[in-house]
Amino acid sequence: MKRVAIIGSTGSIGQQALDVIRTQPDGLKAIALTGNQNIRLLEKQMKEFRPGMFYSSGKPAVGYGGEFLSPEQIASHPDVDYVIIATVGRAGLGPTLAALRAGKTVALASKEVLVMAGEIVVREASAHGSQILPVDSEHSAIWQCLRGEENRPQRLLLTASGGPFYHCSDTQLDEVTPEQALQHPVWQMGKKVTIDSATLMNKGLEVIEAHWLFSFAFDSIEILIHPQSIVHSMVEFTDGSLKAQLSWPDMRLPIQYALSYPRRWSNPELPRLDWNKVKSLDFEPVDYGRFPCLKLAVEAGKSGGTYPTALCAANEVAVELFLGHRIRLTDIARIVQRTLEQHRSISQPSLDEVLAADEWARGCARGLSLGQDVKHERRDNPRTER
Amino acid sequence: MKRVAIIGSTGSIGQQALDVIRTQPDGLKAIALTGNQNIRLLEKQMKEFRPGMFYSSGKPAVGYGGEFLSPEQIASHPDVDYVIIATVGRAGLGPTLAALRAGKTVALASKEVLVMAGEIVVREASAHGSQILPVDSEHSAIWQCLRGEENRPQRLLLTASGGPFYHCSDTQLDEVTPEQALQHPVWQMGKKVTIDSATLMNKGLEVIEAHWLFSFAFDSIEILIHPQSIVHSMVEFTDGSLKAQLSWPDMRLPIQYALSYPRRWSNPELPRLDWNKVKSLDFEPVDYGRFPCLKLAVEAGKSGGTYPTALCAANEVAVELFLGHRIRLTDIARIVQRTLEQHRSISQPSLDEVLAADEWARGCARGLSLGQDVKHERRDNPRTER
Repeated sequence: MKRVAIIGSTGSIGQQALDVIRTQPDGLKAIALTGNQNIRLLEKQMKEFRPGMFYSSGKPAVGYGGEFLSPEQIASHPDVDYVIIATVGRAGLGPTLAALRAGKTVALASKEVLVMAGEIVVREASAHGSQILPVDSEHSAIWQCLRGEENRPQRLLLTASGGPFYHCSDTQLDEVTPEQALQHPVWQMGKKVTIDSATLMNKGLEVIEAHWLFSFAFDSIEILIHPQSIVHSMVEFTDGSLKAQLSWPDMRLPIQYALSYPRRWSNPELPRLDWNKVKSLDFEPVDYGRFPCLKLAVEAGKSGGTYPTALCAANEVAVELFLGHRIRLTDIARIVQRTLEQHRSISQPSLDEVLAADEWARGCARGLSLGQDVKHERRDNPRTER
Repeated sequence: MKRVAIIGSTGSIGQQALDVIRTQPDGLKAIALTGNQNIRLLEKQMKEFRPGMFYSSGKPAVGYGGEFLSPEQIASHPDVDYVIIATVGRAGLGPTLAALRAGKTVALASKEVLVMAGEIVVREASAHGSQILPVDSEHSAIWQCLRGEENRPQRLLLTASGGPFYHCSDTQLDEVTPEQALQHPVWQMGKKVTIDSATLMNKGLEVIEAHWLFSFAFDSIEILIHPQSIVHSMVEFTDGSLKAQLSWPDMRLPIQYALSYPRRWSNPELPRLDWNKVKSLDFEPVDYGRFPCLKLAVEAGKSGGTYPTALCAANEVAVELFLGHRIRLTDIARIVQRTLEQHRSISQPSLDEVLAADEWARGCARGLSLGQDVKHERRDNPRTER
């Protein structure tokens, strides 16, 4: 029986993690839940699962006997075996580090944690012998494909659906509303990741995540557009053989895999691929030129230091502004690019330096959105040398 | 350094095995070669590789210092580590059993060995702690996908290109010449397996092979038509996750994988998948009704006993007759079906009983082709109860 804490149980991943826990009563027990502002849902979850610990940014009316603790206290609590980090943005960093330092196994659904502070997170995991298990479907796929292999692959191939606007012109992209952008063709996800999917920033963040999770150089990580989202990623070995992991797109599978590993658990509620419906799987190499967010992310990853932190923070602010109808979808890349241009990166940053870079970039991005009309920025503004 | 004997070095697989050995001088050494009637090619191979042992059905003019031994003597020789069984039809059975009894690792490219005598072959391997490694691309794919997994999959999905006539009508199939049938759309292979691919008998034999190699029930082995032959097969786990192995179709990859296992060796001569060329992978469940040979093979496999032996032998005879312009392509299924109808199967047969069933079925098939015009047989002749 694995005793699980879910940091962010009221979000999309958190709710699906509870779905998995419901179907595996012999293997999993939710002993801690944390939410943010959706107190009603958290109360409902607590009523059902009766966790011994909980947290939310507003205190629920009824605790159902659980103890109110901070996310960091929960993530490092002696009763906890597995910590699922299912938060949005930077909120997952503190609990992740607390869990790793306490020797917990972390099932990581929040890619921002590794993008913001990959070096620190990987170092802490290594220092305390703690494991980080991927929950993102692409990284779960790579992890599954690496099982049992003695030799490292020469390439990781991350697949990307391309999002809802892959074939739109720049002019069309300028007119996209948040409501349109939130309609992802394949995945039902939280708002932040859905917008990141539309700009392909999400795939760029995943490249950085893969870099840290699997210790692969950026040049060995490629992206393939695959609209059906059935092949979740692939690895290519030095003999020319590739392995791919496939499934119907459903986040409960990678969540369960991280929790069942090294076993696989039967789960009739998880959908099966039906080859009468999946007739064709399409692939094409990504066109980096068409997706500035993707390019910015991969460049920030390669540049290292606190560039990825600044990218992640500026993007988080810009996505919020877009969701609030304050900027256009295409402004997100401009705000992130200008933030990176103005950022003074620190190599091998400490946690404080990471948090300072995060704060600075948020302020910078907000200023950029207020101080000038980002809508009229030049498109072809070249990235300055850093 | 693995010391390799190739039983059938002048055939298609044998030549490609030597290609692999050429590229891996630090890992592999060909110390024994055997051919059948292509003595000129065998002499050429012996001149290059200088094997310590050799065999052919006609004796070469020059032995290049090698010792002339029978295939069984070679397969069980103390100097040999790996035995590649790359023969056509029943010729591989004796050397396979000799190798397994001598504790050798057998890289098995001849599926007929397991179809004819699967139970005996698997029993001998188990009794002597010998390994059988698949070389067929589909079975190599399954084997690669099973690596490192603790739980058995619930299904094996064998892919099939469908061969050159997948979309032909029955009337069109009646008119197919051997020359047309030998033009496989994807794979360059020996004649026997190319004809078997055109009738889909090959896929039926592979189902029986997979049954014995991986101990899977026939109902857990499915076939997917996949014209591009890029996904070589898949496995589906109980959590709904699938793993697939992909590569450009090239038999040197599964040959090398069997020889390099558990390592993977870099080999720049093996082709890489180019995603600018492979734009789409298509799949459809197979229509058993359209391919009587496939259905006959799977039914023979399920029935067990010496039915698969009789199927295999009758098919071998019928393919030879077709290649000699003596019967039509569509007669192959009729001859096999009639042979099976007349066959008296023996459960858990001894090797002598297998060989007797093989002889009987060959005679029966030849008789059927001579004694009556198989072209005018009723199509819908129901299979009699056994």
